[in-house]
Amino acid sequence: MPYDIVELMEEVEVKTGFLPNVFKAMSHRPAEFRAFFAYYNVIMNKETGRLSKADKELIIVATSAVNRCPYCVVAHGALHRIYSKQPTLADQVTVNWKLADLSSRDLAMLEFALAVCRAENITEEHFQKLEAHGFDREDAWDIAMIAAFFAMSNRIAHFVDLRPNREFYSMGRTPREAGRDHT
Amino acid sequence: MPYDIVELMEEVEVKTGFLPNVFKAMSHRPAEFRAFFAYYNVIMNKETGRLSKADKELIIVATSAVNRCPYCVVAHGALHRIYSKQPTLADQVTVNWKLADLSSRDLAMLEFALAVCRAENITEEHFQKLEAHGFDREDAWDIAMIAAFFAMSNRIAHFVDLRPNREFYSMGRTPREAGRDHT
Amino acid sequence: MPYDIVELMEEVEVKTGFLPNVFKAMSHRPAEFRAFFAYYNVIMNKETGRLSKADKELIIVATSAVNRCPYCVVAHGALHRIYSKQPTLADQVTVNWKLADLSSRDLAMLEFALAVCRAENITEEHFQKLEAHGFDREDAWDIAMIAAFFAMSNRIAHFVDLRPNREFYSMGRTPREAGRDHT
Amino acid sequence: MPYDIVELMEEVEVKTGFLPNVFKAMSHRPAEFRAFFAYYNVIMNKETGRLSKADKELIIVATSAVNRCPYCVVAHGALHRIYSKQPTLADQVTVNWKLADLSSRDLAMLEFALAVCRAENITEEHFQKLEAHGFDREDAWDIAMIAAFFAMSNRIAHFVDLRPNREFYSMGRTPREAGRDHT
Amino acid sequence: MPYDIVELMEEVEVKTGFLPNVFKAMSHRPAEFRAFFAYYNVIMNKETGRLSKADKELIIVATSAVNRCPYCVVAHGALHRIYSKQPTLADQVTVNWKLADLSSRDLAMLEFALAVCRAENITEEHFQKLEAHGFDREDAWDIAMIAAFFAMSNRIAHFVDLRPNREFYSMGRTPREAGRDHT
Amino acid sequence: MPYDIVELMEEVEVKTGFLPNVFKAMSHRPAEFRAFFAYYNVIMNKETGRLSKADKELIIVATSAVNRCPYCVVAHGALHRIYSKQPTLADQVTVNWKLADLSSRDLAMLEFALAVCRAENITEEHFQKLEAHGFDREDAWDIAMIAAFFAMSNRIAHFVDLRPNREFYSMGRTPREAGRDHT
Repeated sequence: MPYDIVELMEEVEVKTGFLPNVFKAMSHRPAEFRAFFAYYNVIMNKETGRLSKADKELIIVATSAVNRCPYCVVAHGALHRIYSKQPTLADQVTVNWKLADLSSRDLAMLEFALAVCRAENITEEHFQKLEAHGFDREDAWDIAMIAAFFAMSNRIAHFVDLRPNREFYSMGRTPREAGRDHT
Repeated sequence: MPYDIVELMEEVEVKTGFLPNVFKAMSHRPAEFRAFFAYYNVIMNKETGRLSKADKELIIVATSAVNRCPYCVVAHGALHRIYSKQPTLADQVTVNWKLADLSSRDLAMLEFALAVCRAENITEEHFQKLEAHGFDREDAWDIAMIAAFFAMSNRIAHFVDLRPNREFYSMGRTPREAGRDHT
Repeated sequence: MPYDIVELMEEVEVKTGFLPNVFKAMSHRPAEFRAFFAYYNVIMNKETGRLSKADKELIIVATSAVNRCPYCVVAHGALHRIYSKQPTLADQVTVNWKLADLSSRDLAMLEFALAVCRAENITEEHFQKLEAHGFDREDAWDIAMIAAFFAMSNRIAHFVDLRPNREFYSMGRTPREAGRDHT
Repeated sequence: MPYDIVELMEEVEVKTGFLPNVFKAMSHRPAEFRAFFAYYNVIMNKETGRLSKADKELIIVATSAVNRCPYCVVAHGALHRIYSKQPTLADQVTVNWKLADLSSRDLAMLEFALAVCRAENITEEHFQKLEAHGFDREDAWDIAMIAAFFAMSNRIAHFVDLRPNREFYSMGRTPREAGRDHT
Repeated sequence: MPYDIVELMEEVEVKTGFLPNVFKAMSHRPAEFRAFFAYYNVIMNKETGRLSKADKELIIVATSAVNRCPYCVVAHGALHRIYSKQPTLADQVTVNWKLADLSSRDLAMLEFALAVCRAENITEEHFQKLEAHGFDREDAWDIAMIAAFFAMSNRIAHFVDLRPNREFYSMGRTPREAGRDHT
Repeated sequence: MPYDIVELMEEVEVKTGFLPNVFKAMSHRPAEFRAFFAYYNVIMNKETGRLSKADKELIIVATSAVNRCPYCVVAHGALHRIYSKQPTLADQVTVNWKLADLSSRDLAMLEFALAVCRAENITEEHFQKLEAHGFDREDAWDIAMIAAFFAMSNRIAHFVDLRPNREFYSMGRTPREAGRDHT
């Protein structure tokens, strides 16, 4: 395995406390590993715009549930609990996003993400609904790119039969974990 | 627009004879442009394995037809005609891949690509069907990654309302074009 | 084969330059051949009403794409290019009619044709949408009968495994063909 | 209304005891009326092959139930009761053909008819299943044409909002009617 | 078989003139038999609210048709004919409830019942539509409970392969039966 | 509220540590409350047969996930964790039961439960698959009744907008809880 990839994985393991299985799975193809995570970082670590870290994770949970991807739902559900400090929302969104305890702004965000996830035609009507909740065209782009990137990731996960690390299931469920930093 | 992106687009335009609309659309976000095309190149220009250039384009046509993406079906249909020197297969696959004039090997390749495209669980049975037609696990990975990458691309295309350049529709339909090089 | 059918097929071959495969396939049952083409002519060669020859072909392309019928999509796509002198619309409608470069009138026409194609209940609301684009009840009848007739034709084509003649794929794609008469 | 159509309708009314609503609805367009019933007669009154009159009606009931066509289900359900002298089968097929009290031969016939009805690709496997129950290629053609013709008829019925005559609902339900001739 | 169950079945047989097959099927598990019919009676024999006996049977027919349950469609279709004295409505609802000869009140009732039947999220909009036709929250509860109970019953019927008694098919189809009491 | 219902709810609250929301919701209709829980107890507390308490809860989680019922998935997921002492299985089954870490016996059990849940026709083939994993006809009945009962419960939950108590989300996730008794 190329040294840069070994190094990156060690870094992640130190920071997170364990190595998320996606890193090991993707390391089978070093060039694709680099391209995948470079793209992931561009989209997920973009610092401008109205999407919080928790918003981004919620989009991933909602769209990955449609694609029935255990890794993405469980791992990003854990990250959502950490970032949002809300221990139950990700589980609710996994079962039925429309019945989750979400603001109308968050529902509009997920409704748009799911239209992208389902490869629907995106029309002016979609943008107007987003705008009614304060999301401009750049925010729409951000939501769409996360939904599109995870449309890819969910399918890769199915191909490599990616399973969630045991740690993810319980992460962020209790108050004392709320302040801990996971990335 | 950053100079590296301008330069890359000029290069493409010179080589292809026109600038495919996807470049212009993605240039709105330079960092994403670079990540998207870097990833694309890693997957599509990989030179090892059993997938020919024409095979890769056929996978894109078949999966993009499921997602009803006009840009990807028309542009990659054109590339398929150029690479395969077969002027009618892409149109057949667009309407109904199972009724296209394909070898059983090509049908197995598309059947697997479409399982990935539809976010199905991928099982040993899938790999065995591929192996019966000479595709090993690395080839399966190649097919899956193209299907997964275009699951993302089709959704991005819907978001930016990407339309095919007029040139793509007629490209590669007549014998004299068969020898011409497009990449 | 009865003489009237032989004669009709020779006539078509002279006029079109080749014998479309549908004639050969249907000639297996002479009585059904006569009934099928008699009905086809009544609907398709009706000269009153607001549907142009190109409109009728576009309805066939859009509805046959839903039924994934290669013969009808490719053959009637060719006829649409000939009649409309627009070389790209049929390909667009084949992939995703809602994203084709169509007037709102043409979109309303196809939306109604697809409701009939999908065997939906037809209600006053459907007629009102058509009327808003200038189509009266008789035009609605014309659209519905084409969609219904090709609901039948597409299924017959699947049964006889009807494949498009090679000539159809490239017909009407270049300007010089635009003036040529095909029926 | 042209005299030939008036005459035909009077003849039907005398023979059946009432005028089935489909005649009145189609008479709005005399040329289409003639073409529709001419085609219907070629398919339904064909005397060769292994399909009984009751078989043909059962195919219509099963496929029209998929298309949710009240006229065709109720009217041809009545004709099935008359021809088969079995008062309950059509009702069973309307709800769930797989649970109807049918022979394996009849189930194979309906399974094939429904594949055509759903515009599925028809393959060698379909023909082999039919052959296992004694149906040859000509019988397959007969089944397919009835399913295809009623794919059209069901959609026309939805367009003209065709409703069953009251007489059809109770026809053939009691023993004394069993011997009566309806066509 | 416990005596209370034998007794109840004898009582039903005397009253109805035959023993509906559901009783025999459920008697295989006496404790479940008692619980099932006790629950059934609470819901179906509730005497308050705006649902008539015929309304309740129509809800069962419409929802059981979605679940393709022959027993429930045929048996409760018969009960609907008896209670409503309308010999054709149940058959219409079985094929296509939206095209049945129903008042807008009855259509609203069935639309809501089918939303419950399909396990849709139930929202304020559903209640408002019902209220526009005179159904309050308690009536909505009654409709929902019948739809939910038969979501269970239809699945039990599929499991035990429950078939309608021959008597149900013809019951209530002729005027003289209209006044007869069946429960 | 009738005293027997108040008393039962107090008993449950003492035993469980909180009152699950389903009790409060159903108490709106005392007679239905009694019938619902009586039937629930007959099915869920039946002591014979091969289904463990954990098996029964897993069937509820898998089928309620199909119906997207937050209450049933979350509450019975908690009960599954308690009974099985496996903290991650219910979450896995919620997202994608086929990818959960289950024995082939448990997969066969869920496959059958989901066939019932989806109102499929149940055939000899279903029973044979169960028998191959040691489940006899009585076990099949038990699985089917749970799936059918929760087909009803999920729909009732959607109607009353039932939401999981906060306690359920974290119950049984940590080792020390494993030994605690919840019913």
